[in-house]
Amino acid sequence: MLSINELKQLRSLQQKKYRKEYQKFLVEGSKSVMEVLQSDYIVEKIYATEQWKEKHPDFLSEIQLVSSKECERISSFATSPEVFALVQIKQEVVFEENKYKKLLLLDRIKDTGNLGTIIRAADWFGIHGIVCSEDTVELYNPKTIQASMGSFTRVNVFYRDLAAFMLENKNNYTFFGTFMEGESIRNTAFPEYSAVILGSESTGISENLAMVLNEKISIPRGGEFVCESKAESLNVSLAAAIVCYELTI
Amino acid sequence: MLSINELKQLRSLQQKKYRKEYQKFLVEGSKSVMEVLQSDYIVEKIYATEQWKEKHPDFLSEIQLVSSKECERISSFATSPEVFALVQIKQEVVFEENKYKKLLLLDRIKDTGNLGTIIRAADWFGIHGIVCSEDTVELYNPKTIQASMGSFTRVNVFYRDLAAFMLENKNNYTFFGTFMEGESIRNTAFPEYSAVILGSESTGISENLAMVLNEKISIPRGGEFVCESKAESLNVSLAAAIVCYELTI
Repeated sequence: MLSINELKQLRSLQQKKYRKEYQKFLVEGSKSVMEVLQSDYIVEKIYATEQWKEKHPDFLSEIQLVSSKECERISSFATSPEVFALVQIKQEVVFEENKYKKLLLLDRIKDTGNLGTIIRAADWFGIHGIVCSEDTVELYNPKTIQASMGSFTRVNVFYRDLAAFMLENKNNYTFFGTFMEGESIRNTAFPEYSAVILGSESTGISENLAMVLNEKISIPRGGEFVCESKAESLNVSLAAAIVCYELTI
Repeated sequence: MLSINELKQLRSLQQKKYRKEYQKFLVEGSKSVMEVLQSDYIVEKIYATEQWKEKHPDFLSEIQLVSSKECERISSFATSPEVFALVQIKQEVVFEENKYKKLLLLDRIKDTGNLGTIIRAADWFGIHGIVCSEDTVELYNPKTIQASMGSFTRVNVFYRDLAAFMLENKNNYTFFGTFMEGESIRNTAFPEYSAVILGSESTGISENLAMVLNEKISIPRGGEFVCESKAESLNVSLAAAIVCYELTI
C-alpha cells in the first residue's frame, strides 16, 4: 500500500511538467523494467503487485508491493502493467561523433509512438545515436518509452538545434535528408560517417535544414512491375527502419 | 441533427459484432474519406460538421450535417474527426494469383495499428495482396482503417486458413517466412511469384506453417561495425516494410 503522496507523485509522472520537475520517469511492464535494470540508468524503486512477485521468484531487486488498483492509477495505459520502475532521467551524455558512425536526425517528430518505434528500429540495426530537434516529442513520455520496448536504454537520444548541430558537424558527417523527390536510397552509397534526417509526419524536413544538407534521398515506391502505388507517404517510423537497414549494409 | 437510432447505429459500428451484422463500417477523417470516395467501395453516406463543409467548398457529395458532439459520440478516437463516411463492407474479391506477383501473408497479427501500418507499407511498395490468417485482427476495425491512411482502398486483404492457402498455391508461389535465424534477406533472390509470411508479434510464425514454407529468411541486425545490437525483436510492421522494400527491388 502506497502513501497518498507517493501515489500522487508517481501518477504525476504521466505529465511532462512533473517529469521535468522531479527529473524522474516511469518504466512500465516486465520487459522494459528488466532492460532498464540492466542499463546505466539509475533505478530508484521497483513497484509490483504480489502476483507479479510470485511469478518472478528469481527477481532479486527490492520490491515495493502495490495493488492492481494502484497500478491502474499510476499507469498511463488502458491496460496497466503489474510492475513499474521509478527511474532517474539521465543527464544528457556528451555527443562524441567518434561513437556514432551512423546517425539519425529527427526533425519535429510529433508522435510519441513513432519516436519510440524509431528508437527500437535504430537499436535493431546497431545505430546508437539519434539527434532530435528541440521540438521533437520527449523521450521520457510513457508512450515513447513503451514503444521503444527497452531500446531507449541502448540508444543515446540527444536534443539539439539541428541547424546548429549540422553546422558544427559538417566536417564530421555527410548529411542526407529523406524527401519525396530525392535520389533512390537503393543507389546511395553512404560514407563511413553518415547522418540521415527524417522530417515531421505532416510537413517533412524544415527548409533551413533542407538548404544545408548534402544530399536528398528518397525511398522508392514500388509499382513498376506490380501495380502503380498511389500511397501518399510512408509512415516515418517505417521510413526510418528502411533508412537504418540501408545505412548498416 | 441525427435521429437517436441513426446515431446509435453509427456508434455501434465501433464494435466488430455490429459491423458484421450491418455489413458496414466507418471511415473517419478527411484524407481517408476522400480516398474511399475514389475507390470501388460503396459509400452510403457522408457525415460532416458545418465547419468541415465550409472548409471544403469543392466537396460535391451530399453531406448529412452533424454537430461536433455527435462526432464525438460516433468516433472511436479520443480526438474525433469532423467528417465520416458510412461504407459497405466489400464482398471478398476472388483471389487471382496472376494479379499478385508479390504477396504478404500475415499469421495471427493481433495489433490493429500494425495491420493498418502493414497495409500502408504494402501499398507504398506496390504490393496489393495480403492474405491474413483467420485469427488476424479484422480489416474494418477503426484503428486498422485509420492506420492504413487510405491504403485499405488499394490493397486487397484476404482472410484464409494459411496452411490450406499455401497448399493450394504451392505451385504458384515460393513461400518465405521471417525468422530470427533465417538466411539474411539481403542475400535472398525472390522469384517472380513470391509470398512472405510474417508471424504474430509475440510468438512468430505458427509451426504448421513453418513446416511447409520453402525458405526461412531474417532481417539482419546491425552491429558488426557500430555496436552490437541487443534489441530482441523488430516491430512486425517495420519488418513488413523492409520485406516489401526487398520484394520490390
